[in-house]
Amino acid sequence: MRLASTTAVAAVLGLAAGPVSADEGMWTYDNFPSAKVRETYGVTVDQAWLDRVRGASVRLTTGCSASTVSPQGLVLTNAHCVIECVQDLSTAQADYVKDGFLTATREEERACPGMQAEILTQISDVTDQVRRATAGKAGQDFVRARDAAMAEIEKAGCGGDATLRCQVVSLYRGGQFKLYKYRKYSDVRLVFSPEYATAFFGGDPDNFNFPRFNLDMGFLRLYENGHPAATPQHLTWAARAPKEGEVTFVSGNPGSTDRMLTVAQLETQRDLIIPVGQLQRAELRGRLLQFAGENAEHKRIATDPVTGLENSYKVFFGRQFALNDPAFLQAKRQGEAELRSKVAANAALAAEIGDPWGEIARAQTAAATHFVRYRQLETAAGGGSVLFNYARELVRAARERTKPSAERLPAYADTRLPLLEKTLLDVKPVDAPLEQLYLEHWLLKTREYLTVDDPAVKLLLGKESPEGLAERVVAGSKLADAAERRRLWEGGLAAVEASTDPMIQLALRLDPAAREIRQAWDAEVAGPTDRAAERIARARFAVYGDQVYPDATFTLRLSYGKVTGWTHRGQTLPWFTTIGGLYERATGAEPFALAPRWAKAEGKLDKSIVYNFVTTNDIIGGNSGSPVVNARGEVLGAAFDGNIHSLGGAYGYDGRINRTVVVSTAAATEALSKVYGLNGLVRELTAGKKR
Amino acid sequence: MRLASTTAVAAVLGLAAGPVSADEGMWTYDNFPSAKVRETYGVTVDQAWLDRVRGASVRLTTGCSASTVSPQGLVLTNAHCVIECVQDLSTAQADYVKDGFLTATREEERACPGMQAEILTQISDVTDQVRRATAGKAGQDFVRARDAAMAEIEKAGCGGDATLRCQVVSLYRGGQFKLYKYRKYSDVRLVFSPEYATAFFGGDPDNFNFPRFNLDMGFLRLYENGHPAATPQHLTWAARAPKEGEVTFVSGNPGSTDRMLTVAQLETQRDLIIPVGQLQRAELRGRLLQFAGENAEHKRIATDPVTGLENSYKVFFGRQFALNDPAFLQAKRQGEAELRSKVAANAALAAEIGDPWGEIARAQTAAATHFVRYRQLETAAGGGSVLFNYARELVRAARERTKPSAERLPAYADTRLPLLEKTLLDVKPVDAPLEQLYLEHWLLKTREYLTVDDPAVKLLLGKESPEGLAERVVAGSKLADAAERRRLWEGGLAAVEASTDPMIQLALRLDPAAREIRQAWDAEVAGPTDRAAERIARARFAVYGDQVYPDATFTLRLSYGKVTGWTHRGQTLPWFTTIGGLYERATGAEPFALAPRWAKAEGKLDKSIVYNFVTTNDIIGGNSGSPVVNARGEVLGAAFDGNIHSLGGAYGYDGRINRTVVVSTAAATEALSKVYGLNGLVRELTAGKKR
Repeated sequence: MRLASTTAVAAVLGLAAGPVSADEGMWTYDNFPSAKVRETYGVTVDQAWLDRVRGASVRLTTGCSASTVSPQGLVLTNAHCVIECVQDLSTAQADYVKDGFLTATREEERACPGMQAEILTQISDVTDQVRRATAGKAGQDFVRARDAAMAEIEKAGCGGDATLRCQVVSLYRGGQFKLYKYRKYSDVRLVFSPEYATAFFGGDPDNFNFPRFNLDMGFLRLYENGHPAATPQHLTWAARAPKEGEVTFVSGNPGSTDRMLTVAQLETQRDLIIPVGQLQRAELRGRLLQFAGENAEHKRIATDPVTGLENSYKVFFGRQFALNDPAFLQAKRQGEAELRSKVAANAALAAEIGDPWGEIARAQTAAATHFVRYRQLETAAGGGSVLFNYARELVRAARERTKPSAERLPAYADTRLPLLEKTLLDVKPVDAPLEQLYLEHWLLKTREYLTVDDPAVKLLLGKESPEGLAERVVAGSKLADAAERRRLWEGGLAAVEASTDPMIQLALRLDPAAREIRQAWDAEVAGPTDRAAERIARARFAVYGDQVYPDATFTLRLSYGKVTGWTHRGQTLPWFTTIGGLYERATGAEPFALAPRWAKAEGKLDKSIVYNFVTTNDIIGGNSGSPVVNARGEVLGAAFDGNIHSLGGAYGYDGRINRTVVVSTAAATEALSKVYGLNGLVRELTAGKKR
Repeated sequence: MRLASTTAVAAVLGLAAGPVSADEGMWTYDNFPSAKVRETYGVTVDQAWLDRVRGASVRLTTGCSASTVSPQGLVLTNAHCVIECVQDLSTAQADYVKDGFLTATREEERACPGMQAEILTQISDVTDQVRRATAGKAGQDFVRARDAAMAEIEKAGCGGDATLRCQVVSLYRGGQFKLYKYRKYSDVRLVFSPEYATAFFGGDPDNFNFPRFNLDMGFLRLYENGHPAATPQHLTWAARAPKEGEVTFVSGNPGSTDRMLTVAQLETQRDLIIPVGQLQRAELRGRLLQFAGENAEHKRIATDPVTGLENSYKVFFGRQFALNDPAFLQAKRQGEAELRSKVAANAALAAEIGDPWGEIARAQTAAATHFVRYRQLETAAGGGSVLFNYARELVRAARERTKPSAERLPAYADTRLPLLEKTLLDVKPVDAPLEQLYLEHWLLKTREYLTVDDPAVKLLLGKESPEGLAERVVAGSKLADAAERRRLWEGGLAAVEASTDPMIQLALRLDPAAREIRQAWDAEVAGPTDRAAERIARARFAVYGDQVYPDATFTLRLSYGKVTGWTHRGQTLPWFTTIGGLYERATGAEPFALAPRWAKAEGKLDKSIVYNFVTTNDIIGGNSGSPVVNARGEVLGAAFDGNIHSLGGAYGYDGRINRTVVVSTAAATEALSKVYGLNGLVRELTAGKKR
């Protein structure tokens, strides 16, 4: 089914290089197509509406979206956006992932390690400043100059205000640079998360499918100075269910799309980058599943990792088979040819733009040469080991901080250090058996892909085996202790280089080879590509005007659409499920087993209430937890998934079959009250509600 | 390294649809290009030579090649061709995989379960008979008529002689049909296998790489009526090392190549068939590796499965990235276009051939629709579970045997039953934990790919989970007991349908859905493809004459070449390694640890002896264990691998860089004598040897 469906998606996708189709687009707040929405749906989205919804939209630095839903800092998101926190707060004695995390009072709310919440307050255009810095530069010089300019603008934008975060965002793949200013909240606490069996009912098999029956909803609270933050600008909770055809807006942070990549780049994704990633993910998945089956404690600690990995796996599965459909790439080729011929027809434009497509095509040779090494030694180094990441960040940051901010690797510029420091120093449990598994897997794959006789592999392993080395460095490392991390962070390069911690030593050993391949990648792949992409963006603006939206960048976007089902190959899927459907689908066997509270509450619940529903909104990973609001700005639910047809969404959108999957606030109200007895939470949510 | 290399291979491959390049080809014994060999190498291969080498060439039904090397039925093959047998003969108390299997007397030689050895005695052309049977037929009718005719010819060819096996082989993808008659040996016993650390030194990381240091050599003995079989027609053992430039012939059974597939078929391989298989293999590999790390007994029972799976994985890894190279497919496209234009230029030929390329291209749509279901329910059903395979064969055979032979599925025709019966009824240990792992993995993937709501998935699982079902049917099955299998085999359909064995019941439940998808595949994919491929073969004969060789079919072939290293990207690899190199490469950590016997024998060995060497012979999986013989018919070693550049060999051959990797008989003589003290075996090998 899945493969056939993906194929079908590809065959019908519009994939236009220019004007977008109905309901398509992840629009920036400063370029939202209000006129088109009014024309299509008769709904007015004015600046006040935009300001109100933007002010209630929350970005979680852990990779999700959310919204404020009470004046006391209460935040609605997905259960799968807080599961890492729930797992961190759990122990072998208290498994909140399995049992749910419920709080009756503020005192029971607990801080989520490493999590920061951010609310966008201002967007300003800084394109010219960045362009001036990069003028006439190429390759690695281009990358360095651009990154330094961006860090400089960020620093100037927020000054030393610790409650703000400034971030320069490259939109339209270098076509625009915007300074995004955020109000930030570093103390985010967990208020509620349902049982795993409830939030993830249907598990991986039902993920990205529909019908669905998931209370994939979690609540957080923003704190300031130890007290709940005041958030007067919040959304109104709609306890009523949505209606078919109702207009919906999704305000959130889509993580990444590749809709503007050239065909040459898509071919590299198809032929090399995605397959290599997927093969390694599949093998790691096998290891984790087997590990989880070994005993109850392994199952407990592996629940979040397995869930996360299986989700990524499925996302890239969809991307791989979308790109593997020749009809899909053919449509992309046509779009590209159309844009190029329009450019060629305008002599002045053609002279200005040059041949960025050719430049990008040529960079693919370098990408093919460097990709595996770049992946294994740099972007995927450590294979997911938390301890290795700590070690690598401590080593890198220590070395980088000896230089002026503008000369550092971009991740270590002054404006980036506060979040890095929080991530590094927050207290967080570390599961040694998982650490060993990740590290061993990474070392095995690195040896496999680079071969035994590669100098970097010899440097990593010496005479040890991947298994032996992983075991030794995990057993010997003290980096699970936040105090030790703080000591090394504050001690700087001298402390790091003097450390006898075997994980630090491993990271120190790898660092030169990792920097070398990063430099080659920047000089031969990223630099040429980014320089060329900027000119393609300029061409697109020149030809199609500004009625295009940028690829997703994990920054705030607004999409519009409506509540409706879909028809595919003669089968019509309804737009909603009900609470009653959950009981019909339950088999008693995981992942289709009911949580005990739900089994017990069956008689009390209104089974006709809309549980999950679908809309035509154009979203992608990172949008998880986004509020789905109606024209009045009421929150109807939290987006938590896409349907199977949306898996090719990284490359294109088809409003006929792409759907966003939402858990309704109506079902949440019913469940919080009748299943969980959390009437205080329900009162807070519905306090200001208009019926 | 590997990806880059694969890319490089593809870019330079000849990939001609017609005339072959130097040293290319897996030639049938009745069409060996002796004239070309004489012209190229000045060596004469006459009929007497061919008859002698053919008569000493052995096929092992377990998927390998071998050769007789003494008059008393002694057979040389690879250690990796006997590892399954060694694993079957081992127990938790006696681990011959780890420690090696050594015999001092005939009495210690032990039968290998399920293994049959076959020596080709005669080839005759039956193309016309098959053609007459299929004339005017299409789709499933075509497949059925062809299969029935083949089974009929086999039956007529061997009569009831239990010492013979007759097999009709489709060569050139239906271009020719030949009857291959074999002398068969059903009692094959294990004589010698080295320690795993010796045979597989370097393990998966070094597999398909060079330099290598592997004693990947095993000895078997053919028995008849409880006594060693007389094999007067055997190869002479060369205790001397080969020389650089020496002409070499490899006589063995290459399993499968896809060099004659059309571009449309290759695209389906690239876009669908290989990626799906690899993703599932990768996940299973992860599970097995994690399983093997759980404890010593799991490691023991998983050694052979892990080795086999990792080898398949690497083979398809090479194929995937060869096909993912656009230059590679471009070369294939050119070859196809050339053949088509030559056909078009000949009106009579064009009229006869029609448009088989178009027919095959259209069959790809059906392939895309059916492939995943066909794979999960039919070709890969059970996921490798031995018990499930027993159950499925018992169920299928019971149903099929109620019909006349010609109306059965081809695998159950009368001539195919003796080997099936042996495979089913030989006593063989079954490892329940592995069974459960395989079955669970298969059920999980089947649910994942076909979705929860698919009727076949519902039929398989009911309300159970894959984990629960796998555990229950493995725990409850009695099929590990050969007597129970015999009871069901002999009891036929009544016994099978009355069985309460849960594995039998699972197989009974699946069978109708599996047959249904097989039928759809035959009717819409296999039938149209085979019919069209036959005409492409005819076109190729008409255009290029008979100086082409057929794709590999696990039947006896002869390839020619010479001993020589290779140069790639400025790096020259020498043609050989020495025993001394083994000690230099050893690290003490698996898979680079020496077996204790080898560590102890270091001082006694002549370290200058050639250990492994490479030749230009064109081989592929299935050739493992093939004798590598010189012009005088002396065996210089056993082929056991290809180099990294040979991984694209399924689709083409490049004599500049494709190499066969061989373990030398010279090193074997030294090791058998000085490491293992098996002087009796050495005497038997070298008894008739000419120095």
